[in-house]
Amino acid sequence: MRDLSADHALLSLNTATVRKQGDLLAIVEACARHGIRAVSPWRDQVAAVGLERAVRAVKDAGLALSGYCRGGMFPADAAHAQEARDDNRRAVDEAAALGAPCLVLVVGGLPQFSRPGSAPSKDLGAAHAQVEDGIAALLEYARAANMPLAIEPLHPMYAADRACVNTLAHALDICDQLDPDRQGSLGVALDVYHVWWDPELSAGIRRCGRDRMLAYHVCDWLVPTKDLLLDRGMMGDGVIELRRIRCEVEALGFAGFVEVEIFSNDWWTRPMNEVIETCITRHRTIV
Amino acid sequence: MRDLSADHALLSLNTATVRKQGDLLAIVEACARHGIRAVSPWRDQVAAVGLERAVRAVKDAGLALSGYCRGGMFPADAAHAQEARDDNRRAVDEAAALGAPCLVLVVGGLPQFSRPGSAPSKDLGAAHAQVEDGIAALLEYARAANMPLAIEPLHPMYAADRACVNTLAHALDICDQLDPDRQGSLGVALDVYHVWWDPELSAGIRRCGRDRMLAYHVCDWLVPTKDLLLDRGMMGDGVIELRRIRCEVEALGFAGFVEVEIFSNDWWTRPMNEVIETCITRHRTIV
Repeated sequence: MRDLSADHALLSLNTATVRKQGDLLAIVEACARHGIRAVSPWRDQVAAVGLERAVRAVKDAGLALSGYCRGGMFPADAAHAQEARDDNRRAVDEAAALGAPCLVLVVGGLPQFSRPGSAPSKDLGAAHAQVEDGIAALLEYARAANMPLAIEPLHPMYAADRACVNTLAHALDICDQLDPDRQGSLGVALDVYHVWWDPELSAGIRRCGRDRMLAYHVCDWLVPTKDLLLDRGMMGDGVIELRRIRCEVEALGFAGFVEVEIFSNDWWTRPMNEVIETCITRHRTIV
Repeated sequence: MRDLSADHALLSLNTATVRKQGDLLAIVEACARHGIRAVSPWRDQVAAVGLERAVRAVKDAGLALSGYCRGGMFPADAAHAQEARDDNRRAVDEAAALGAPCLVLVVGGLPQFSRPGSAPSKDLGAAHAQVEDGIAALLEYARAANMPLAIEPLHPMYAADRACVNTLAHALDICDQLDPDRQGSLGVALDVYHVWWDPELSAGIRRCGRDRMLAYHVCDWLVPTKDLLLDRGMMGDGVIELRRIRCEVEALGFAGFVEVEIFSNDWWTRPMNEVIETCITRHRTIV
């Protein structure tokens, strides 16, 4: 297990963590000022400043990326299938332009939530199938662009509207199905918030192996959690056994960044410097 | 699959569904008036009117029970272990007095939430072990009282504070461990709200078998869900494939009641009659 206490060289900041405090350029500048070496930006934040400016800002600041958020939202009705395909190809292209090591996939839930305007359905099995088909199709494109895809299993409370892949086991089943030879082009993004509760988590991490562990995200689970989406906790403020999980991930040989991703109505009200400084402190003492 | 469309003879009302609209006696009276044949009461509602009055009211109304809510909350520190044990034995006794077919177990999460005042812990594995030990100990007592225990896997969003058994597979692993001979004294209460998202649900139901399927609960998952605990939907208002799941449960030979259990700040504001009538209509048309 790596020692994070001496510095924050392994910390990456998911830019959603301070999305309300400034645009991507301001976030990149703040990261550089705080000696943060990596970020994981969101597509809407990139679009807001323009892809070229985003690429230049990241390069000028000497920042690495730990991922790019996000592709996915595969379930769609026939009228929205082309939109889903085109949108995901653009996400791959943007990730490549930014030099991301992987494109994170939030796979989508039922079609009416995944691609709004799609005909409503309750057929979860059909959504699962559309997700697998969608990843299979995107994988060809992503391989040609040399951009690994990282399936992020989301907490089961998002099964209907955000992602119907809710366990590491399910994500790895898809990986095994679509990439049986483990070519390195398909894996998972493991976010503790989504998987900490799973009694099969340790087994899943071992099954994952180093080559399928493409990204590792941290935050914390608060009790009580006041909002299903926007009440994630800062590391140490909740109940997740962060060190145990990181130990298991690093036992695989995982050598990537530890990415902080916090969507929080609370932390979004605080100054960007305070949030970043807290992330750094907790990274060194808690994560 | 049973035909529910003709009447509501198979409907049971979990009394929490209208807990804000009246006490247990008022709920029992309303059920009798609406031709509802079964209820599943909560301990605090029974305590509020007194066990003897509750027993008499249920009997006088000719109501069956589909379960009794609830035992559990096993994780505790040493100072609270006796409290947990005694409390659960009383729950068994009350269930027996009321003539319940099973005591539903919400197993508890981390000890500081399961038994408030217990020393805080983040050790989820230790909580799992305490749950198994707690059920094992209670099972002896429950067998002597001829009261089956029904482990209810709760949605993973309750892992920290309410129940750290969050999948049907985990609940059945505990059943297999503690009751390998399937004596009929240990099984599960399956509530669609908690398990609908699980890609292993169908396999779990088949594994369950008729003898371990002790109770079946319905409501719906709303999108968006505004509160982690108190925003359950009326059947048909959400995204759960109710008929598919019931079909799988009844394929086992399950012949029990279909219990409606809705915790909802919305439905709690409506008149008891309206809620009960809606439950009956949806039972016949949606469930």
